[in-house]
Amino acid sequence: MTSGTPPRDGAIIAVDWGTTNRRAYRIAADGSIGDHLRDDRGVLAMAAADYPPALAALRERLGDLPVIAAGMIGSTRGWHEAPYVSAPADLPALAAAALRIEAAGLTIVPGVSLLTDTRADVMRGEELQVLGAIAAGLAPADAVFCQPGTHNKWIVTEAARIVDVATVMTGELFALLKGHGILAGMLDGVVTDGPAFRAGIARGAGATDLGTALFEVRASVLLGHRAPDEAAAYASGVLIGSDVGARAIDGRTVHLLAEGALADLYKVAIEARGGVTVAVDATAAFLGGVHHLRGYLGL
Amino acid sequence: MTSGTPPRDGAIIAVDWGTTNRRAYRIAADGSIGDHLRDDRGVLAMAAADYPPALAALRERLGDLPVIAAGMIGSTRGWHEAPYVSAPADLPALAAAALRIEAAGLTIVPGVSLLTDTRADVMRGEELQVLGAIAAGLAPADAVFCQPGTHNKWIVTEAARIVDVATVMTGELFALLKGHGILAGMLDGVVTDGPAFRAGIARGAGATDLGTALFEVRASVLLGHRAPDEAAAYASGVLIGSDVGARAIDGRTVHLLAEGALADLYKVAIEARGGVTVAVDATAAFLGGVHHLRGYLGL
Repeated sequence: MTSGTPPRDGAIIAVDWGTTNRRAYRIAADGSIGDHLRDDRGVLAMAAADYPPALAALRERLGDLPVIAAGMIGSTRGWHEAPYVSAPADLPALAAAALRIEAAGLTIVPGVSLLTDTRADVMRGEELQVLGAIAAGLAPADAVFCQPGTHNKWIVTEAARIVDVATVMTGELFALLKGHGILAGMLDGVVTDGPAFRAGIARGAGATDLGTALFEVRASVLLGHRAPDEAAAYASGVLIGSDVGARAIDGRTVHLLAEGALADLYKVAIEARGGVTVAVDATAAFLGGVHHLRGYLGL
Repeated sequence: MTSGTPPRDGAIIAVDWGTTNRRAYRIAADGSIGDHLRDDRGVLAMAAADYPPALAALRERLGDLPVIAAGMIGSTRGWHEAPYVSAPADLPALAAAALRIEAAGLTIVPGVSLLTDTRADVMRGEELQVLGAIAAGLAPADAVFCQPGTHNKWIVTEAARIVDVATVMTGELFALLKGHGILAGMLDGVVTDGPAFRAGIARGAGATDLGTALFEVRASVLLGHRAPDEAAAYASGVLIGSDVGARAIDGRTVHLLAEGALADLYKVAIEARGGVTVAVDATAAFLGGVHHLRGYLGL
């Protein structure tokens, strides 16, 4: 389609274009979801020249419609860089800073950055889920969100604005330790909730010596103090315990934007630290974000 | 040589048989050092069948003498496992638990383990350096030692006994982050002391959110808050700062069993945290340990 041609039925295509995966949805004017797809054409699998035919293929499948894309497509590793919006940031701010690629009928949603005297952090994609969850009524305007993954993100909102973010390399550290170095070969067990995972949480939460707590995984197995098949759960507990324990969540509600085994582990850790968890459907949050953003974008 | 044949001149061969490297020395009866060699025949390069010919080759080079070996040769990845001695441990305890392989004319020095209600830790090789430094008069009997490397070890002695040990995976974590994952490609700069390294120390020391501090390396570069060529020094500062900052060293003397660039960085970090450093020659400490141990062994 060409830029400026209004879609006949008011539908759009929303893409969550991540590092390794991509999800695309047709969203009708009333916000209802039509056809959708998920594949492994994340930005790491794409060269710049691959984007125009990829968008054409998306339109062939989902309709000749305007495309709104969020996530790593707007990063330096993506197609066109959409500079970060500084926190505090809300949906209108994201819309105002969105990058329009007219020739492609594409709008790229910017990420959100935090830069203070003591902290620097960034997100791309999570901002739309968090603000979308609020816009869609899935979470209150003042909330704490947790988005477990390779890099867990803690996001705090006030009055439907993102005011704080802390990224924790929990999943990546576990994968690095499991795949390489001296703990490799000890962390292949299934990680599930249980005494070993909870002992790990207790060790990791609030610890100032994470590098020592991780070596203890090996030492405790060598000394017969922990069963080898518990090492993975214990190590995961140490890392997730450190992650969750660094946040002030005692007595607070944490909105978990995840599902599956990893979300279950975070739920255990958050509750062990005195928090209350509420599960939020990440897909519904993303789609809610796109649906409300399009109004600000005039699409 | 055959077991029980006394060496004519009272000399012995001492081997520091590590994971990737091996150092061997001829030590005369008076403790003076003769010929020595260093190569890459660490335990990871050796199969069990390789040890007898390797020992024969050592004797051809250094003399047909009894061999005392410390380090990973006594681990489950080495030749014959020498069970750990529990802390508190002194040189006579190491001698009493030494593993004699009579057929090979070899004595393997055991490592030292720590197991308390809250901690588990182990060492193999460092115990002989620490107790050797004390026996040789290079450090007092009550001391704090720091042995930077892939795995830094903090060892506390009282009355010439090892009473505490904490291993920190500082070097391994840096190598994993440098080689893999999202920080790969950002950490190739030379790590030297300077404002970036010291800022990293300040961020890492006492931090309960190491996994977040590490992500900030990337975020601060993306946001133009830190020059890309400073990222490696900052990340190293965060990790070494976390390592050193977890120890109670303010106003205390730390005996640094290392030399070179890494020792210099730890010296900066220790002094930044209010400690005083004293350099101890690790080779002299090891040789002092073997020389004094042989008396307890009756070799």
